[in-house]
Amino acid sequence: MAKAKSKANNKPVILVTNDDGYNAPGIKALAQAVEGLGKVVVVAPDKPQSGMGHAITIGQPLRLQKVHHFGNLEAYACSGTPVDCVKLAVDKIIKGKPDLCVSGINHGANHSINVIYSGTMSAALEASIESIPSIGFSLLDYSIEADFSAAAHYAKEIVQQLLKGKSIDKHLCLNVNIPAVKKEMIKGIKVCHQAYAKYEEKFDERKDPHGRKYFWLTGEFVNFDKSKESDVWALKNNYVSVVPVQFDLTHYALKKKLEKQFK
Amino acid sequence: MAKAKSKANNKPVILVTNDDGYNAPGIKALAQAVEGLGKVVVVAPDKPQSGMGHAITIGQPLRLQKVHHFGNLEAYACSGTPVDCVKLAVDKIIKGKPDLCVSGINHGANHSINVIYSGTMSAALEASIESIPSIGFSLLDYSIEADFSAAAHYAKEIVQQLLKGKSIDKHLCLNVNIPAVKKEMIKGIKVCHQAYAKYEEKFDERKDPHGRKYFWLTGEFVNFDKSKESDVWALKNNYVSVVPVQFDLTHYALKKKLEKQFK
Repeated sequence: MAKAKSKANNKPVILVTNDDGYNAPGIKALAQAVEGLGKVVVVAPDKPQSGMGHAITIGQPLRLQKVHHFGNLEAYACSGTPVDCVKLAVDKIIKGKPDLCVSGINHGANHSINVIYSGTMSAALEASIESIPSIGFSLLDYSIEADFSAAAHYAKEIVQQLLKGKSIDKHLCLNVNIPAVKKEMIKGIKVCHQAYAKYEEKFDERKDPHGRKYFWLTGEFVNFDKSKESDVWALKNNYVSVVPVQFDLTHYALKKKLEKQFK
Repeated sequence: MAKAKSKANNKPVILVTNDDGYNAPGIKALAQAVEGLGKVVVVAPDKPQSGMGHAITIGQPLRLQKVHHFGNLEAYACSGTPVDCVKLAVDKIIKGKPDLCVSGINHGANHSINVIYSGTMSAALEASIESIPSIGFSLLDYSIEADFSAAAHYAKEIVQQLLKGKSIDKHLCLNVNIPAVKKEMIKGIKVCHQAYAKYEEKFDERKDPHGRKYFWLTGEFVNFDKSKESDVWALKNNYVSVVPVQFDLTHYALKKKLEKQFK
């Protein structure tokens, strides 16, 4: 099994995970993109886990199974959530902290509020909580046959840039989204804030063959953020968006107001 | 079904949810605590959903079932996650935005990093994303037979205080934890920041009767935060901790640094 910070050859250890499952084309593209940049270990869910957010498996045990979907790379399928994959990889596979965790490439956007629902980004955030710098990558194309070449190019470039930096913040967590256009169309990388945008949900109400109601989640995406600094703006204008993400959810501005109210 | 902002009697509409399921004593205590403060509607998971974080159900339909566990209160069990409960309540039960969403009372702590894994807090955060002010309540006692009297007292007091305020921030989301001591021991309410504390996970490795490995999540809680402003400090010193929580995860300080790096 992989050992963290393999000093023998001075190669950084890179953990690769996702939420679409080990079988998704997006994670293959990501593993290939970073393969030459370190010792790569893949630990990904054994089935699709989109929309799992920061869920962890408490009430039942987890399984790991070696898989051979990534050429010569060491790779495992995990029966749990994306966050479980990171936790298990650290404790039972790498047996230490990798130098970097990359998650994705997600089939579909994770800009704006999606960061909260996304298993891809929750895996990255979990790594960052565990003091492992991390990056989640998402392509704005839900198709199973999406073209990952531009996304993989930028994934490699961003990982290279971070690894060559003198010191990466141990809690660094980047949410990187790539527009679904040809590489030549992309104008570059833009550091952004998370757009204030959300879904106006509607549930599609149906009846089953026994006459009982059931509901399917649907919804319309609405962007309230008019700033040119937001990830949604950047992506619409063919930039790769990079949003630094944090796990301290404290609303410090509101904290000050509340201190007066609860005195 | 309930109608949002029942102007007839000018009572605020209060949505009650949780992650322990509609059958948990904690949600009964919360519903009773706020019953006199408005028109209360309960929509909670039909089974325990602890640790579900911000998971939503995408790949399968949801069910709602009327339940009669809350005296005369309108109440439903939902087959989905805590976040699904909020979404379904708004679109299909209340058919509009309630004036307030309260989540809990959770059986167990949701201070510090727990806010990210917690279904209780994710339900509250979902309400806040949907412009519904919200509060998650958690008691530092995992027991099914926990004494919720002090927690219920403070839940009522905090909800009252917010409802009488001239204007609640529509995105207000409070993470309230109550120490597991008698009411007389509690020193008061303290507005705090989320402590920098996390779990050092270890998986318990076992073999099933067929000789195959499986893993149970365990772990030790470690607090790195020495501040007297943190929720962990407040709870240890018998205060009720109140942390205002936000859904904009952008790390603005890091954003400035990265802008230079990616120029």
